[in-house]
Amino acid sequence: MKKTAMTDVILKAKADKQLRWEQIAEHAGLAPEFTTSACLGMNSMPKENADKLCAALALPAEVSAALQEFPHKSWDKWVPTDPVIYRLYEIVAVYGETIKQIIHEKFGDGIMSAIDFSMHIEKVPDPKGDRVKLTMNGKFLPYKTW
Amino acid sequence: MKKTAMTDVILKAKADKQLRWEQIAEHAGLAPEFTTSACLGMNSMPKENADKLCAALALPAEVSAALQEFPHKSWDKWVPTDPVIYRLYEIVAVYGETIKQIIHEKFGDGIMSAIDFSMHIEKVPDPKGDRVKLTMNGKFLPYKTW
Amino acid sequence: MKKTAMTDVILKAKADKQLRWEQIAEHAGLAPEFTTSACLGMNSMPKENADKLCAALALPAEVSAALQEFPHKSWDKWVPTDPVIYRLYEIVAVYGETIKQIIHEKFGDGIMSAIDFSMHIEKVPDPKGDRVKLTMNGKFLPYKTW
Amino acid sequence: MKKTAMTDVILKAKADKQLRWEQIAEHAGLAPEFTTSACLGMNSMPKENADKLCAALALPAEVSAALQEFPHKSWDKWVPTDPVIYRLYEIVAVYGETIKQIIHEKFGDGIMSAIDFSMHIEKVPDPKGDRVKLTMNGKFLPYKTW
Amino acid sequence: MKKTAMTDVILKAKADKQLRWEQIAEHAGLAPEFTTSACLGMNSMPKENADKLCAALALPAEVSAALQEFPHKSWDKWVPTDPVIYRLYEIVAVYGETIKQIIHEKFGDGIMSAIDFSMHIEKVPDPKGDRVKLTMNGKFLPYKTW
Amino acid sequence: MKKTAMTDVILKAKADKQLRWEQIAEHAGLAPEFTTSACLGMNSMPKENADKLCAALALPAEVSAALQEFPHKSWDKWVPTDPVIYRLYEIVAVYGETIKQIIHEKFGDGIMSAIDFSMHIEKVPDPKGDRVKLTMNGKFLPYKTW
Amino acid sequence: MKKTAMTDVILKAKADKQLRWEQIAEHAGLAPEFTTSACLGMNSMPKENADKLCAALALPAEVSAALQEFPHKSWDKWVPTDPVIYRLYEIVAVYGETIKQIIHEKFGDGIMSAIDFSMHIEKVPDPKGDRVKLTMNGKFLPYKTW
Amino acid sequence: MKKTAMTDVILKAKADKQLRWEQIAEHAGLAPEFTTSACLGMNSMPKENADKLCAALALPAEVSAALQEFPHKSWDKWVPTDPVIYRLYEIVAVYGETIKQIIHEKFGDGIMSAIDFSMHIEKVPDPKGDRVKLTMNGKFLPYKTW
Amino acid sequence: MKKTAMTDVILKAKADKQLRWEQIAEHAGLAPEFTTSACLGMNSMPKENADKLCAALALPAEVSAALQEFPHKSWDKWVPTDPVIYRLYEIVAVYGETIKQIIHEKFGDGIMSAIDFSMHIEKVPDPKGDRVKLTMNGKFLPYKTW
Amino acid sequence: MKKTAMTDVILKAKADKQLRWEQIAEHAGLAPEFTTSACLGMNSMPKENADKLCAALALPAEVSAALQEFPHKSWDKWVPTDPVIYRLYEIVAVYGETIKQIIHEKFGDGIMSAIDFSMHIEKVPDPKGDRVKLTMNGKFLPYKTW
Repeated sequence: MKKTAMTDVILKAKADKQLRWEQIAEHAGLAPEFTTSACLGMNSMPKENADKLCAALALPAEVSAALQEFPHKSWDKWVPTDPVIYRLYEIVAVYGETIKQIIHEKFGDGIMSAIDFSMHIEKVPDPKGDRVKLTMNGKFLPYKTW
Repeated sequence: MKKTAMTDVILKAKADKQLRWEQIAEHAGLAPEFTTSACLGMNSMPKENADKLCAALALPAEVSAALQEFPHKSWDKWVPTDPVIYRLYEIVAVYGETIKQIIHEKFGDGIMSAIDFSMHIEKVPDPKGDRVKLTMNGKFLPYKTW
Repeated sequence: MKKTAMTDVILKAKADKQLRWEQIAEHAGLAPEFTTSACLGMNSMPKENADKLCAALALPAEVSAALQEFPHKSWDKWVPTDPVIYRLYEIVAVYGETIKQIIHEKFGDGIMSAIDFSMHIEKVPDPKGDRVKLTMNGKFLPYKTW
Repeated sequence: MKKTAMTDVILKAKADKQLRWEQIAEHAGLAPEFTTSACLGMNSMPKENADKLCAALALPAEVSAALQEFPHKSWDKWVPTDPVIYRLYEIVAVYGETIKQIIHEKFGDGIMSAIDFSMHIEKVPDPKGDRVKLTMNGKFLPYKTW
Repeated sequence: MKKTAMTDVILKAKADKQLRWEQIAEHAGLAPEFTTSACLGMNSMPKENADKLCAALALPAEVSAALQEFPHKSWDKWVPTDPVIYRLYEIVAVYGETIKQIIHEKFGDGIMSAIDFSMHIEKVPDPKGDRVKLTMNGKFLPYKTW
Repeated sequence: MKKTAMTDVILKAKADKQLRWEQIAEHAGLAPEFTTSACLGMNSMPKENADKLCAALALPAEVSAALQEFPHKSWDKWVPTDPVIYRLYEIVAVYGETIKQIIHEKFGDGIMSAIDFSMHIEKVPDPKGDRVKLTMNGKFLPYKTW
Repeated sequence: MKKTAMTDVILKAKADKQLRWEQIAEHAGLAPEFTTSACLGMNSMPKENADKLCAALALPAEVSAALQEFPHKSWDKWVPTDPVIYRLYEIVAVYGETIKQIIHEKFGDGIMSAIDFSMHIEKVPDPKGDRVKLTMNGKFLPYKTW
Repeated sequence: MKKTAMTDVILKAKADKQLRWEQIAEHAGLAPEFTTSACLGMNSMPKENADKLCAALALPAEVSAALQEFPHKSWDKWVPTDPVIYRLYEIVAVYGETIKQIIHEKFGDGIMSAIDFSMHIEKVPDPKGDRVKLTMNGKFLPYKTW
Repeated sequence: MKKTAMTDVILKAKADKQLRWEQIAEHAGLAPEFTTSACLGMNSMPKENADKLCAALALPAEVSAALQEFPHKSWDKWVPTDPVIYRLYEIVAVYGETIKQIIHEKFGDGIMSAIDFSMHIEKVPDPKGDRVKLTMNGKFLPYKTW
Repeated sequence: MKKTAMTDVILKAKADKQLRWEQIAEHAGLAPEFTTSACLGMNSMPKENADKLCAALALPAEVSAALQEFPHKSWDKWVPTDPVIYRLYEIVAVYGETIKQIIHEKFGDGIMSAIDFSMHIEKVPDPKGDRVKLTMNGKFLPYKTW
């Protein structure tokens, strides 16, 4: 079973059972953000968690196997079009050099890893309009000198 | 004075005076992330803060005027090349659909604003290697129905 | 039911019943511009309106469900090719900097929202040739300083 | 004098004299939107108006001559980057097919001209946040059959 | 019936009946160039002509309906590859600025319409090799000042 | 002297002497379209004509030499932006396949040359609005079989 | 029968009968290079040769008809990826200006035709490693002055 | 001295002395095609030949040094625009797969080298129009199996 | 059988039999890296090895035939997206000029062949985190002077 | 002093003193590959090594300071053009998926770091033609599950 078919099956089960990603994540024993990314085919899930997820959604073993596979991460558009994702792209373009300056100032020459990385999304109530709080946490990797 | 010349002047003063962005930001009375982005020409600074910054760095009034101008935000590469910034781009591409799903689940149809937006970078000490914590905070904007 | 299938079903029903977008919009209780964009898969319609629309067109519940889904807005061409749409693209390219100058002059640093946004198209009779009047109305969003 | 040099001279005079585009336009006897676009080099101004504008700003005859020249309209980025202009681009991409449908329904097969065209920007006060109202007005051009 | 299916049906009938575009155009009562472009899906044909064409080719009413639909003009390659079409592209690139200069000299600031437009192709016998004569005829549209 | 400098010199002399391309072409003894393209650096002019042109405009010998050089034809944008030239590009994209069909029907497999080629632009007065008539004339080149 | 289906049928017959392009070309009475290009859909073959080819490969008349059709030459990648073809692309990029200089020196202003063109590939034995000899032969086309 | 400055100096000396590439090549003791490519900065010339060339053109030692430097081969346009070079690009695109098939048939799996490579251009007189004969000669490189 | 179908069949057999590429390579009598690339359709395998591989995996003769075919090497993305492959792309971009300088210093003007080439991947245990050692070995090809 | 000026100064000193990268690296106390990349502006050099390098080449302190700066890694071409670097790009495209498969097989889901990374180039004498051996060594980074 390919990752794309796996995603379709999971989304259908999610809709049929009226479940939220948070509930599915709880079943899997992982964070909602990681669980969602694995279900969308962008991460591989450990066997134990994949089995739990499939048990909770009553999905067959081949879905669990597909969740465990190592994905080929792929996207089609250099510039994303959906407004939710474009705004993040715009933030990276507008603030990228700022982030680089501040990381270099705090840590030295190196980068924030996108591999040893986690992410968390929260809703912050605000009378002037609720706010999205998106926290990224990545290991600092210093450049090697040799 | 154009924004690019302004940036050169500020970076030179910063190097000559051996100042960190955090110190410059404190002089300006703004967050280091906002201060850096304004000095790099990607945001406009209120007059009061721009004047304080220029006073602290002993820069002339035309630098303050340039800091106050509304920028034309511009970038040359659809895909950033510097590894610090590319990793952020990769995160947006890999996790963009995940973020979209979770924002929609928590808030409904709409986006996280990149305009009513702030950002904060922290160093999180970790024995296995220090970590970069990057927090984005943007107002949720629901789509209008008419 | 995917949005693309939904659009095909609605367009067929519209042709069979010889309805105009204005009439469909009246059934749905929304503006023709919003109704059209939702039927083309570029906006999500509230349940009440989607149900009314489907009732009027004698379409099944799954069409209503598809109309309510939050879309992933997507397009394939960075530069549109159809002359109707290209002319709008050309207007944005030719007058974009003008619009930016005038918005900044009237409002300060910020943007016109494309999310808290509505649009209206009118036919203005004119003896020298009728004219299209296209009105866009978006909330001004000021940049946040922090 | 090239159009780019002309724009620099006008912007400097505008800043020195603390004038708004609306005031400059009044001197020129044209709409602010047209005046701004001509000063930015994207339209040619009739001699009478160009001379009035230069008289009001105390600019030499070669600026008037440059304002009268027929421009080569040119842009560098297929996708605009500045958020003000990108949002307009996004609107064209998201609503382009909707606009096409409605123009065809109201007028038949043809386009809204970007040449026989005018544009108007207003500030609409609103307690929930002021709004930008952007009105475009273009002649409908029917396709010729032969 | 979609335009692409319509084109396939017409091309098959044309091949089966061994007809030339000129003959089909005569049946339709339109110029061969317009008729061909409508059959290829790039123009909409008036009902009367579409019905005549279908009668002559013994095609069903749905083909006539498809011919009457307003097309979404679309192409996939920014630079055409087939040598016949590339040479035309090259001519536009090499002579575009020349054409612009001469139109401006003869007419003032404005463009040749691609909408109120017709085109004619002739074979000019020549002992040194026959020649293609391609005549384009478009309405001059002056820029509006406002 | 490079072609770009040559063009600047010729355009300045043309403006100073208030000459039209037609008049310059008459001096050179060539068609206005060819003369303009050579002055813009897109064609090489025979010595005799280049010398006559320079004599008429009182330009030095190095301008004549530059006019005679064989150009490297070059353009920067795959899709032209100026509306005059874009409309021609759109015509090629919309009608390219039509032109190909009709050339093949009239001549067989082959192309219209863009090298053994000439072009002529006329103003056709019309009470409903003057029209641009653009005639292209290129040798038919049949594909070789071997 | 479309050209792509035609190619599949010919390649299968070629494999089943264990024929080389040289042998197929001999049957068709044409050069191997032309025969191959026509079988791959990039040239049209005269009826006589197409019929002979189909007789030799025991292919039906519709394959012959497809071979005779005038192709729309098309490719998907601006830069070819297969190493055999990329090296040719690299040669054009590295030596293109050299070839232009030498053609202009030997012939004057003009081009080598890609239409009135033939090509021949030979294997040249060499003790240090056999060599590919690729000969292109195209008519010189001088630019027309008018 | 950079390669670009070197090319300018050589082209000026070539024009002043009214020399053809063939004559310069004879002085250098190399083929005209190689000599031209080295003078245009796309190949490095052995010291002995570079010195002879500079002696013949009365150019200083730094030109010889620049000729000997190993170039960084670079080009700006993925698709060449000048018609001489575009036609070669078109030939590669149209006949690339044909060349691949025939090389594989004659040699097995591998490529024609663009490094161990030479090229020769001849003028072939022909009463119907002279022809360009372009011969490429590259070592066959078989893929390694390991 | 096309290469893509061949890859699917091999990957399924590999998964069913729980084999590693190293084991499959041992059966084929080739290196794991070469074996993998041939199974993924990017190299052609000698008959003897292809037959052994198919015998070991119990695959039919048509799979062996497909493995022996000479591939058309093709990829869709100019910039790879999967992080494993992007990092290699980044290394080429960051260190490409360095590699060029050092190859030229050690060997003279020429390149490392990608055809007469082999590659080897090892796991190097390291207490601070295991390391990937990737060794490329290509023949040096000197540029030919002629 | 900007990195680009720094590179020019170092290359000139290297040429004047007739030094090889290996010798410069020995002076700096670092590997030749790292030293070269830092001198080309693609890595930052520790102060101690930068000072030693500048002492050996008799370069001023500002060169050492520039060597120590953290670079913004940048490149202009998505596909490199110089044959040395293109061949590496081709290897990544052809063998990228193979490398991914084998890394995943040996290590699990994760990547080879391009940051905690070193590289070594050797000349391997071979009677059939010397070979380039390029060794890359990067830390394996496993994806984090959270």
